[in-house]
Amino acid sequence: MNSTRISQLFDIQYPIVQGGMVWVSGYKLAAAVSNAGGLGLIGAGSMYPDVLRTHIQKCKKATSKPFGVNVPMLYPNIDEIIAIIIEEEVKIVFTSAGNPNLWTSHLKKHGITVVHVVSSIKFALKAQAAGVDAVVAEGFEAGGHNGREESTTFTLIPMVKEQLHIPLIAAGGIATGRGMLAALVLGADGVQVGSRFAASLESSAHIDFKKKVVAVSEGETVLTLKEIAPVRMIKNEFYTQIEKLHQEHKSVEDLKKLLGKRRLKRGMFEGDLVDGMLEIGQVAGLIHEIQSAKEIVEEMVKEYKEVLQEKF
Amino acid sequence: MNSTRISQLFDIQYPIVQGGMVWVSGYKLAAAVSNAGGLGLIGAGSMYPDVLRTHIQKCKKATSKPFGVNVPMLYPNIDEIIAIIIEEEVKIVFTSAGNPNLWTSHLKKHGITVVHVVSSIKFALKAQAAGVDAVVAEGFEAGGHNGREESTTFTLIPMVKEQLHIPLIAAGGIATGRGMLAALVLGADGVQVGSRFAASLESSAHIDFKKKVVAVSEGETVLTLKEIAPVRMIKNEFYTQIEKLHQEHKSVEDLKKLLGKRRLKRGMFEGDLVDGMLEIGQVAGLIHEIQSAKEIVEEMVKEYKEVLQEKF
Repeated sequence: MNSTRISQLFDIQYPIVQGGMVWVSGYKLAAAVSNAGGLGLIGAGSMYPDVLRTHIQKCKKATSKPFGVNVPMLYPNIDEIIAIIIEEEVKIVFTSAGNPNLWTSHLKKHGITVVHVVSSIKFALKAQAAGVDAVVAEGFEAGGHNGREESTTFTLIPMVKEQLHIPLIAAGGIATGRGMLAALVLGADGVQVGSRFAASLESSAHIDFKKKVVAVSEGETVLTLKEIAPVRMIKNEFYTQIEKLHQEHKSVEDLKKLLGKRRLKRGMFEGDLVDGMLEIGQVAGLIHEIQSAKEIVEEMVKEYKEVLQEKF
Repeated sequence: MNSTRISQLFDIQYPIVQGGMVWVSGYKLAAAVSNAGGLGLIGAGSMYPDVLRTHIQKCKKATSKPFGVNVPMLYPNIDEIIAIIIEEEVKIVFTSAGNPNLWTSHLKKHGITVVHVVSSIKFALKAQAAGVDAVVAEGFEAGGHNGREESTTFTLIPMVKEQLHIPLIAAGGIATGRGMLAALVLGADGVQVGSRFAASLESSAHIDFKKKVVAVSEGETVLTLKEIAPVRMIKNEFYTQIEKLHQEHKSVEDLKKLLGKRRLKRGMFEGDLVDGMLEIGQVAGLIHEIQSAKEIVEEMVKEYKEVLQEKF
């Protein structure tokens, strides 16, 4: 496929970024995606600083291709994390969940390509003004944490595109070659794929979680916990308990108490499908198989090219 | 542009259907869209039976091209409405808000092409089993009444497409040629456009409502009133009052009392932007001008063709 501003920015073959996800994307997944011609991202959000350092070092050994690290800026050890990223000479950083003014210039001073994840025009422009190299705009259908505006990929991408001049990566709802082409038609320069890679062979998620993602159908994920921070997850017993608190008009404190501290790890890493938190996007309904990252990238590119040959 | 299963089904030039909207789409809009090569729909939902009959008769005089009527099946005078549609020899009916088994075979017995509007795979398959000729699948970003699954256009269209064999019309978030092409790439055979036509010259909405649609930006619509029936509207003073009741954990009865009987007419037809209900889709953020239906259709087709020439 043709190169885009995103494949050029990262010096990769295909403009496919693997979302940096907590409990899912360690060095194995990131290296596999990068080796397949996309951009792999290590998800720092669920790693202690020393664990992150090990993953970066192993990733460098596992691939000679570009890869990056996703850093949620609300991370408690953010200073230490950033220092490790610079020391280990990571070339690409995706920042999320925070103010792009905080770290962008510091990272760029060290020659790092910086991308910021947003869910609205307002923050896309704020990120551009902060000097980032590209923006990921993520729609309402995306798994995990999500914006309050609830703008969908189909409307957010062209609206951001109208106002942004730096490269734009579409995220939320994209798992196929067809979806990738639709995102590029809407104005994106590349795509970020989360859910499909979360269910890949190299993902560090629990096998039962991966099987659950494959089994999920349309309408079986939900954006909830809006009082704390909106998050999209699979409707399971834990979600039923959240709904019960909602119906009883319980307080945010009660919700936080129910949420507790280890829900996400329990669900995604330990495979507790009943009481764990199972973050995934709506597009899980289109994921029918656990595949290697290489198969996923190759299938997406093949389908993209095939759809381009259809009559429109 | 090439013909699709939808342009063939309705015998129209472009696979662009104008959504049949309450207080917005009388015969003037429907005839203008049909004359421009799309499919215009009279929205029966806000019309008394005799008013509908007059609109159908005027539409037949205003265009020699195919047009249709959208019928929300929860309509109190549904038997009378259906009888008028058959008497007046309307050729195309879109049904919504109800069970497709209720009227499909009766309408088809009279030679009418029947399309049903859904927001999930489940109801798409139910409509297909009921014998409809095509399905409109409408995403979360759409204006007005909306599904409980909250599936977005970007994920809903390919998921429905995987299982449905009859023609598929995508709705929700589509207002441009770029959006139309993206919808077709995702697997649709045609598109239904609501918001942009709601703000057209021929729309019977109040001019102040149309100006408001043009002024709306990303993030300024919201899906609310989920306790009654989910509906997407512009965040105005009326919405602030809804939110207040939500925060106070008021009952569904209190919400229904606030809603009252004439909110929608007040907002969209009478132009009360403060206390009226202003139904519109997220894509309002991409609508920058009040144009004629002809200009809208022509611009969409032109942009569609231009985007097809871009390098992908």
